Amino acid sequence: MPYPEQFTGFQVNGPDTWLDFHKNEFQAKPFGDYDVDIKIEACGLCSSDVHTISGGWGSQHYPLTVGHEIVGTALRVGPKVTLIKPGQRVGVGAQSYSCLDCRQCNSDNETYCRKQLDTYGAKWPDTGIISQGGYSSHVRTHEHWVFPIPDGLPSTCAAPMLCAGLTAYSPLIRNGCGPGKKVGIVGLGGIGHFGLMFAKALGAETWVISRSHSKEADAKKMGADGFLATQDEDWTEGHAMTFDLIVNSANSDEGFPLSEYLSLLDVHGKWVSVGLPEGDGLKIRNQDLIANGCFIGSSHLGSRKEVLAMLQLAADKGIMTWVEEVPINAQNLAKSLERLHKGDIRYRFCMVGYDKEFNA
Amino acid sequence: MPYPEQFTGFQVNGPDTWLDFHKNEFQAKPFGDYDVDIKIEACGLCSSDVHTISGGWGSQHYPLTVGHEIVGTALRVGPKVTLIKPGQRVGVGAQSYSCLDCRQCNSDNETYCRKQLDTYGAKWPDTGIISQGGYSSHVRTHEHWVFPIPDGLPSTCAAPMLCAGLTAYSPLIRNGCGPGKKVGIVGLGGIGHFGLMFAKALGAETWVISRSHSKEADAKKMGADGFLATQDEDWTEGHAMTFDLIVNSANSDEGFPLSEYLSLLDVHGKWVSVGLPEGDGLKIRNQDLIANGCFIGSSHLGSRKEVLAMLQLAADKGIMTWVEEVPINAQNLAKSLERLHKGDIRYRFCMVGYDKEFNA
Repeated sequence: MPYPEQFTGFQVNGPDTWLDFHKNEFQAKPFGDYDVDIKIEACGLCSSDVHTISGGWGSQHYPLTVGHEIVGTALRVGPKVTLIKPGQRVGVGAQSYSCLDCRQCNSDNETYCRKQLDTYGAKWPDTGIISQGGYSSHVRTHEHWVFPIPDGLPSTCAAPMLCAGLTAYSPLIRNGCGPGKKVGIVGLGGIGHFGLMFAKALGAETWVISRSHSKEADAKKMGADGFLATQDEDWTEGHAMTFDLIVNSANSDEGFPLSEYLSLLDVHGKWVSVGLPEGDGLKIRNQDLIANGCFIGSSHLGSRKEVLAMLQLAADKGIMTWVEEVPINAQNLAKSLERLHKGDIRYRFCMVGYDKEFNA
Repeated sequence: MPYPEQFTGFQVNGPDTWLDFHKNEFQAKPFGDYDVDIKIEACGLCSSDVHTISGGWGSQHYPLTVGHEIVGTALRVGPKVTLIKPGQRVGVGAQSYSCLDCRQCNSDNETYCRKQLDTYGAKWPDTGIISQGGYSSHVRTHEHWVFPIPDGLPSTCAAPMLCAGLTAYSPLIRNGCGPGKKVGIVGLGGIGHFGLMFAKALGAETWVISRSHSKEADAKKMGADGFLATQDEDWTEGHAMTFDLIVNSANSDEGFPLSEYLSLLDVHGKWVSVGLPEGDGLKIRNQDLIANGCFIGSSHLGSRKEVLAMLQLAADKGIMTWVEEVPINAQNLAKSLERLHKGDIRYRFCMVGYDKEFNA
């Protein structure tokens, strides 16, 4: 009973067997008036996928298909859909629902809607059906969370932008990244490499801050104006109170020299963390913040408007994701997620070959 | 050898005897071209005084005179002084030096100057002399940090504004407090009661958030639009994501329900802590910040421009400090600081009777 009644995806049964993928059919939520069905052609692998199925973020509903950096083709659209046409190449990111009616939704802050639902692992309120992600044949999504992909952008470049890219882009846009600003990107991984390329495209002086120099050459190729390695003695020298904004994409906060990082910020500069480490947090004293009156914050994805602007910026400026393409199947998912878990990727995996796997 | 060669003040000899005041003569720094000598008539008592001499903020230079909410009369001014005239009633707050030449000083952020010096306990770079505070006969201060007091404002109202008031005023001004905004003040103490009165005067809907209801009646008298007590069950109900700004003036972070507080903030709302608790900080996870993309920050005093605007606002709007006046002497200082340490003050002590104590 394949599409349209059922979708097919690679699911895991629990955190103890999180690399053990089973190809199952599953029930999508009922097709709604504003829904778009998408035949998937590519899906990026995100650290969230690892945190979720390995248990690091707590209990989940199993069996579960993860993956939330999806590109494919719109097959059919609900009767009230106006934003998407059948046949269009479109994407879906990590968020798939917001009420579109609250104070947040009415101010382009729908990513902060209190009723927001994730693309995978969320329980749809009416039916109790658990949302399933993009390691699968199809996805069914409200049009607000379906984004046309500009022609110039290859699908495997666009897919990882829909979570990692947006996660880097929104805090840059919302905190004044642009000409005349000095911006730091902590951690050069999937999110960080987008942060670097987008900050440069937006016109800021952009520095990468990493533990070691191992990624310095890559950072320079991506356009970094400078590179700081925290393992160097006096690594902050000459940079105190000079950064307007630092986006921290580090995925772990073990041994994190937070107060040194914060000393880099100009008065009221902002430190925005977009990773969600599994630990129990960092101790912060007001004394760490008062010398420059800096701010520590976080950021969640971004708005539909920001997704569309980001994709257009990438198409216009020829921003190319550093992506390793991998044909989707159970073995390759396990192998790639294990490498992702170890940080052994420069800088994003994208699963491809969906036609062969799901329609052969 | 009294003024002008030497000043006289109440000093303590160390943290073990921090309530044991000795009336000593001490050497002021050499009189500079931009300096103003002030004959003190009133000085507020600040929690900083307690933290400093009781050892909570670490080692200090003793013997030490604290006190940094000073009002008095300008006696003489250096040859290059243009901002202050002899005979003027003036004030001095917690900061007494900034280089006036750096990026921070040139952008009205002189309170964040990397060379800033405190009114008491700081070592003057040239001479090694330790700055002494306002529990004394006179103070010698660079004109930039000397503020004319508007006529309408009594000295004992103005004095506590120069540290506590400014500490509340600057983060309000810098974070958009005004009509149409909902502002919270956590902790109704010396700083908090100014935060409440200034936020109201600036036109914001202002709520006080306290542990219990014990200060609710006072808060209402000061103009609070609402009052929340964290000991009440479901105290956040109806307020989630509605506050634009919360200024936290709490002086301790023991048992602090930080994530509940943060849940009150609108998208990208700001939590600004202005107290400096002695503990080793609060654990913060990005997960606590991501639901609303809120920011946590701190704030240091304020600029000269802000001091002048604050004093004028207070004079124009008739904002009256809730102040208990106490004649200065060794016994009264000990008694009042002990009460301050216990939180037994509504809402500020101000020492008076300087003429009798120092010139009789």
